[in-house]
Amino acid sequence: MAARPLIRRLCIIGVGLIGGSLARALREAGEVDEIVGCGRGEDNLRTAVRLGVVDRYDTDPARAVTGADVVVVAVPLGAIAPVLRALVPHLSANTVVTDVGSAKGSVVADVERIYGAIPPNFVPGHPIAGTEQSGVEASFATLFQNRRVILTPLAETCATAHHLIRQMWALTGAEVIDMGVRHHDAVLAATSHLPHMLAYTLVDTLARLDDRAEIFRYAAGGFRDFSRIASSDPKMWHDICIANREQLLEMIALFSADLERLAEAIRSDDRATILATFQRAKRARDNLYLE
Amino acid sequence: MAARPLIRRLCIIGVGLIGGSLARALREAGEVDEIVGCGRGEDNLRTAVRLGVVDRYDTDPARAVTGADVVVVAVPLGAIAPVLRALVPHLSANTVVTDVGSAKGSVVADVERIYGAIPPNFVPGHPIAGTEQSGVEASFATLFQNRRVILTPLAETCATAHHLIRQMWALTGAEVIDMGVRHHDAVLAATSHLPHMLAYTLVDTLARLDDRAEIFRYAAGGFRDFSRIASSDPKMWHDICIANREQLLEMIALFSADLERLAEAIRSDDRATILATFQRAKRARDNLYLE
Repeated sequence: MAARPLIRRLCIIGVGLIGGSLARALREAGEVDEIVGCGRGEDNLRTAVRLGVVDRYDTDPARAVTGADVVVVAVPLGAIAPVLRALVPHLSANTVVTDVGSAKGSVVADVERIYGAIPPNFVPGHPIAGTEQSGVEASFATLFQNRRVILTPLAETCATAHHLIRQMWALTGAEVIDMGVRHHDAVLAATSHLPHMLAYTLVDTLARLDDRAEIFRYAAGGFRDFSRIASSDPKMWHDICIANREQLLEMIALFSADLERLAEAIRSDDRATILATFQRAKRARDNLYLE
Repeated sequence: MAARPLIRRLCIIGVGLIGGSLARALREAGEVDEIVGCGRGEDNLRTAVRLGVVDRYDTDPARAVTGADVVVVAVPLGAIAPVLRALVPHLSANTVVTDVGSAKGSVVADVERIYGAIPPNFVPGHPIAGTEQSGVEASFATLFQNRRVILTPLAETCATAHHLIRQMWALTGAEVIDMGVRHHDAVLAATSHLPHMLAYTLVDTLARLDDRAEIFRYAAGGFRDFSRIASSDPKMWHDICIANREQLLEMIALFSADLERLAEAIRSDDRATILATFQRAKRARDNLYLE
């Protein structure tokens, strides 16, 4: 362990699955002296202290961030703006702030609106990790190992702040990658936001059938895996839909057109198109994971 | 072990994941004296003998079924009709025939067309089990343990034949359930066929984007599970689409309408509808598996 850790005081606002797992990983790495938790749910914060995830907590963001080198805003997307607004008068220029929101365009727009300009010490970030669980009890130190963390630094972002947040995430075992804000949102709309919409819609479609009890009783092998992400936190995904509306709607439209094309092939007994579609998909999927 | 096994000679036509796993399970149960494999791929049949899955094989269905108590037709749906046609002159009235097709209406229609009427010794069946793998190498004796096998006996089906096939599947550790043909196809369209269409279409939609390499590189946590079934055998799923066309198209239409409703809620910022949809789905999914 270095004589001086990377972060002396870390403040995590929103000690849930992501915030809690980051705290655990940095503590295991021995690269943080003190971790202060903050959030609206005092029960959750007490649990976080009991589990040793944070050293102490403060429900008041102004007090919680005092003296922090790094503030990680790990609240749901829809709560980022109010949190940032509450922090404005209390952040020192030496405090580096980052977030973990699954959409970045809306966060950057919030920051710009609230601060009047992009502060150089703000580094937008997004760890691509998570489970369908939430809350500090679900957090674990290895959540980010071999996962990717995308940072979307802006022209205004200070190189030192950027470097510090890179180092912080690298300590969790993640691969840290820089990307443009719009590109990030397009990639995530395709690979994460759209699949969640499909899983939620599928389960909801089935759940509203008259014989739903019977239907679910026979849910076949693949259904369990396929529908797992429909157990994700509804409020969090509601926020993502709002935050990444434009690019998500674009992906839903692309998907719907492709599904209708497949339905038309099934309807018209166009067997070549059906087979070619499945073959292309299987090839792409097999290449992706080589399972 | 009983002095006399349940089945003296079992003939499995199509020694793949399902047929091979059934053979392994019955052999482990000690309830079959001899297993004869049959199929078009001689390499696969040789592998089945080498792995001890079958005792011997014959590529000619007429010879393969000779003297069999039970014939299991475990070929892809699209190959069931030609196999049944080839067998017509060679099946004794004492041979019980069953299949494992994922759609039952089309199989029953094929049988009726080929035999002129439903033979009393034919028991339509469908083990709800499988992985995205295929071939005899992927087969294993416990595939059906704690899974469900649905039989759809008809008015014409002989009770003794029905009972024998029930016993055969029960030996694999499966729960055996009887169901009407149309009901089976509706339940499977909802819980298995539709999800496969969604997974195939999703992967294909992404694979056809310009920045697909980049897109797939960032495929998030849930994507791996969600897309797993898109690795399933394209020919098999092509056959299922054709066989269960009507009920599958009905489910796709229901799903598409629901997805469009969600898209409209996102477009018009109808946050209550978005949240309610996700909450309903999460509740249904959590109740289903209690993970």
